[in-house]
Amino acid sequence: MRILLTNDDGIYFKGLTQLYEALRGAGHDVTVVAPESEQSAVGHAITINDPLRVKKIARDGTFLGYGVNGTPADCVKIAVREVMAQPPELVLSGINLGANVGINVLYSGTVSAATEGAILGIPSVAVSLDALRRPDFSFATEFTLRLLAMLQGGGAISRGVALNVNVPALPKERINGVRLVRQGVSGYTERFDKRVDPREHVYYWQIGGPVDDMGDERTDTRALSEGYVTITPIFYDLTHHAELERLRESWRLEGLALPCERKPPDI
Amino acid sequence: MRILLTNDDGIYFKGLTQLYEALRGAGHDVTVVAPESEQSAVGHAITINDPLRVKKIARDGTFLGYGVNGTPADCVKIAVREVMAQPPELVLSGINLGANVGINVLYSGTVSAATEGAILGIPSVAVSLDALRRPDFSFATEFTLRLLAMLQGGGAISRGVALNVNVPALPKERINGVRLVRQGVSGYTERFDKRVDPREHVYYWQIGGPVDDMGDERTDTRALSEGYVTITPIFYDLTHHAELERLRESWRLEGLALPCERKPPDI
Repeated sequence: MRILLTNDDGIYFKGLTQLYEALRGAGHDVTVVAPESEQSAVGHAITINDPLRVKKIARDGTFLGYGVNGTPADCVKIAVREVMAQPPELVLSGINLGANVGINVLYSGTVSAATEGAILGIPSVAVSLDALRRPDFSFATEFTLRLLAMLQGGGAISRGVALNVNVPALPKERINGVRLVRQGVSGYTERFDKRVDPREHVYYWQIGGPVDDMGDERTDTRALSEGYVTITPIFYDLTHHAELERLRESWRLEGLALPCERKPPDI
Repeated sequence: MRILLTNDDGIYFKGLTQLYEALRGAGHDVTVVAPESEQSAVGHAITINDPLRVKKIARDGTFLGYGVNGTPADCVKIAVREVMAQPPELVLSGINLGANVGINVLYSGTVSAATEGAILGIPSVAVSLDALRRPDFSFATEFTLRLLAMLQGGGAISRGVALNVNVPALPKERINGVRLVRQGVSGYTERFDKRVDPREHVYYWQIGGPVDDMGDERTDTRALSEGYVTITPIFYDLTHHAELERLRESWRLEGLALPCERKPPDI
């Protein structure tokens, strides 16, 4: 497959380079276009007020790919529109250091790169490892290759959908299986650590805490915590469709009638 | 109402200050916590690798609010956790310069501030004006006040839902009405403008083009273009539920069987 590989931890990060080697070893045609520096928690940011630059990056004396002074979403856009001669057949983002489940999906640059691929109509997959230090990407890499083989072998995802994959940081033999689950929506017990700098000015570090409530076993948060690889199909329509129907029925839009309305308010 | 007011164009921007004056004039208790500098297109980014600072900001010699060296989502979090003595009853984000409809909702800092409010369990509203220059915020401000009165008067939105409101840049008498619509999901004909700097290095400006396809009349993109104020309830669950069901039925997860699986794969 012709694959665009990106991430949010930066082009030199092991989660990306190890996956790159494995994909090439499996015969895939891989183009790396990734942020030059770490872009964690940038969400779906894009760069519109600054120029973007694309730089060829070598590693151990060998060409690795293209570094961009932008976000993961920027990387996908510029790769598809400018860098790659033909559009990729798959956008792959990761392997990220740290899980992207529950509400963290909103903040994740890794997932946003896959969402951007889906917006461009390209099958896209984000892969994250639930480890924060001393990561071992071996099993996550192996799993990613197997998932790609399945996607190629007739398990295609629908247009516009991206897959958000999370892998437990467990030895392979302790992983319980694979689950198709929805995104958890519980909040985090986040807080701010307030400090005073040497010039006596206050500053804050933002700290994410554990999730308030793991949700039921059909959520990514809970299934990952129980040792399952999780796969969640995600989409870029934020509409709450049930609430839209409810408001259409319950709201009296006349309450919002415009002063110079020419006709009755219309839903 | 006790209102937290924020935006992504920065604390000094007229779309915010004009709304602030109007809210105060209507008797609301308003706390402004907004980015010190413009943060357009930052999406749902949060700041975790740099310290956040909160600065008191005056305008025309009078205290206006708190400026934060972060994103709109940062502003909402730090306002609720650190700045405000009591949590707000409403998070209001805007008024933004430029529409936030269709896929642009994903990139929007304005909308993300409202989404963040919803994540924290607070009713939240984002308001954008479909103008890119010489904006006149008068009608959008008036409409926002009327919408708040409706929310207070029994038209409450469900917990976790934010409202994304877009107002046409038309004289009041040319506005056609108000529509409850879903987010459009059509792509944009975006492109990159490639240039060469004086040192002969290539750089790119990212340029959003018009939307490929306006969608049907029940989308925000289309309704706004036809002169309606649009209201879309949005939610932070990105799961594509229909695709999740389809994959649960069609995928043979055995294809992903783990080498040392202890039990059959489980969805």
